Amino acid sequence: MMANSRIVPVEVMKNFIKNIMIKLNVDPSHAENLADVLVTGDYRGHFSHGLNRIELYIKDIQQGTCKKDGIPKILKETSATAWVDGNALLGPVVGKFCMELAIKKAKESGVGWVVAKGSNHFGIAGYYSMMALSHKLLGMSFTNASPLLAPTRSTEAFFGTNPLSLSAPSSSKNDDFVLDMATSVVALGKVEIANRKEEKIPHGWVIDKNGKTSDDPANFHALLPLGGPEHSSGYKGYGLAALVEIFTSILGGSAMAPNVRSWSDNHTEANLGQCFIAINPDCFAPGFSDRMSELNHNLRTQKPADPDRPVLVHGDPERAHMQKCDQQGGIEYHINQIKMADKLAEQFEIEPLKTIDN
Amino acid sequence: MMANSRIVPVEVMKNFIKNIMIKLNVDPSHAENLADVLVTGDYRGHFSHGLNRIELYIKDIQQGTCKKDGIPKILKETSATAWVDGNALLGPVVGKFCMELAIKKAKESGVGWVVAKGSNHFGIAGYYSMMALSHKLLGMSFTNASPLLAPTRSTEAFFGTNPLSLSAPSSSKNDDFVLDMATSVVALGKVEIANRKEEKIPHGWVIDKNGKTSDDPANFHALLPLGGPEHSSGYKGYGLAALVEIFTSILGGSAMAPNVRSWSDNHTEANLGQCFIAINPDCFAPGFSDRMSELNHNLRTQKPADPDRPVLVHGDPERAHMQKCDQQGGIEYHINQIKMADKLAEQFEIEPLKTIDN
Repeated sequence: MMANSRIVPVEVMKNFIKNIMIKLNVDPSHAENLADVLVTGDYRGHFSHGLNRIELYIKDIQQGTCKKDGIPKILKETSATAWVDGNALLGPVVGKFCMELAIKKAKESGVGWVVAKGSNHFGIAGYYSMMALSHKLLGMSFTNASPLLAPTRSTEAFFGTNPLSLSAPSSSKNDDFVLDMATSVVALGKVEIANRKEEKIPHGWVIDKNGKTSDDPANFHALLPLGGPEHSSGYKGYGLAALVEIFTSILGGSAMAPNVRSWSDNHTEANLGQCFIAINPDCFAPGFSDRMSELNHNLRTQKPADPDRPVLVHGDPERAHMQKCDQQGGIEYHINQIKMADKLAEQFEIEPLKTIDN
Repeated sequence: MMANSRIVPVEVMKNFIKNIMIKLNVDPSHAENLADVLVTGDYRGHFSHGLNRIELYIKDIQQGTCKKDGIPKILKETSATAWVDGNALLGPVVGKFCMELAIKKAKESGVGWVVAKGSNHFGIAGYYSMMALSHKLLGMSFTNASPLLAPTRSTEAFFGTNPLSLSAPSSSKNDDFVLDMATSVVALGKVEIANRKEEKIPHGWVIDKNGKTSDDPANFHALLPLGGPEHSSGYKGYGLAALVEIFTSILGGSAMAPNVRSWSDNHTEANLGQCFIAINPDCFAPGFSDRMSELNHNLRTQKPADPDRPVLVHGDPERAHMQKCDQQGGIEYHINQIKMADKLAEQFEIEPLKTIDN
């Protein structure tokens, strides 16, 4: 552990987030949903999507742009599909509702394809795709988001970082495939960190206000899509961002790019579009999870260019992080995160975080 | 038109390919399927997937690794899914069968998800996803392929270029969204062309035999995934190649990476895995095609970095190419392609290609 960090047990952090939400009069089961999604983000090592985002959820609840209670509503339904109104509830509430519905439909019809409008930020996309795993199903999830990503050749942000996720069950222990990726080349966080450290970034991550790639994070105007500039196939990443937009806002009728509210706007309902898919592998060739296990094994045993950096399967870095957390007795947060949490504890008059080393 | 090229009307080229296949005793309807897919590739400007590939199909038929007649077989079925054995028939025959099935299921259940094993090279993935458009459905298609793409950190090719395609109908004329992309950073063809011209290629396209990126196409050992090296998020492209592999061979039980036969092997059945999806947008928010049209319009009117290079929607470059073909009276082929076709005409004793300028 580093001197400037503190360790917080998973359950302690979940209760902390839940308690803040309950103080805001959020339905306790909704508070629980949010806490579980955010802390799962931190536990898996995706700190940008965990405690770090709590203030966004607090502000949305305080402004009333995100609702404290209620239930999502199914607007239209077939044996394999559903269109859902998230009723401006917390993203994790909408996401869990929709993914459970997709799972139920996949068990009945082979595939469940559920699209929501009226949702909010739902944390890590992987949380929802992974819900399918305990049912031995494949899961997918998608969300649109506030504009950050410039289409190839454009000077302006248009799409969000529009993540997509696929989880697929393996027959080996701790071996599930979990892809959870933004369709931008990198997350905004990486650019912000470089900017704070006054470090250069590789060309191809961001464009300046003239639409030229820049290696100076201070010139950030928009993120480039996966692939970077046009000559290195950035138009493919742009196409994937569009695919996510089509599966979310265009199918769902929510706010659509480039008109999704900006990241700093808490006064407008986010009205995000999200898509959740479950697929039953038993409807296809028998032995899916064994083949998945074989694929993963074959990948991990590929000869690496650097013997110290073995070939990984999607989900391995997160498993390594969770193992480290378990060994340490909790999640390791930067001291600044703990200080922020202490301020929130004071503000909401709840018990401060109890770290395992103080 | 350039001096070293010839123009061939679309129907003339289709008949030419069909006639070769009929001389090989291929079922005439299968010959027609193949001709339509390959010439559609050329017409849309994807010359690497058209006439250019004819010899691969001829060799597979001659070797008997690709079957001349028969029908694909549905092995398992639900209202929304099907598992199909392609019975080693031509890829376009399997693809058309599966996509028609997916479309039928999407009309009944909202989604049709069809996975095939026992298939062969099916030409451009976009051909199948676009089949959904005339039914006002969204279409998707995926295929695995011979190893060419090295996973992040690996020194060896493992996946194929594993393409994915999404087509979505717009309410405006000639405005459908058609994404059709390999999950490698570039196609092998671009590296081969640079090698012939003895030109450098950008770092991040290929690795050499030690797994290092190289700007010398002569050092080509494997393609990198979309995103390039690890530091520019190549692991995302690697994840997308894995996603395509999961949707094809792992769901379908076909030959799976890295054990798919090599490009030069015509003695083993390809046994490719392919996946075809159709989605009925009427199962979700009303007005899908109008929103699609709005999205496309908003993208095309974004301010470009270079006024001479406007922002495009996926499908626009292909529409421009088809318009050029229509104005010229046919598809413009390099003279070497025509010479190759003349040799085939002699070999198979069929009428040589009649170009519009000779």
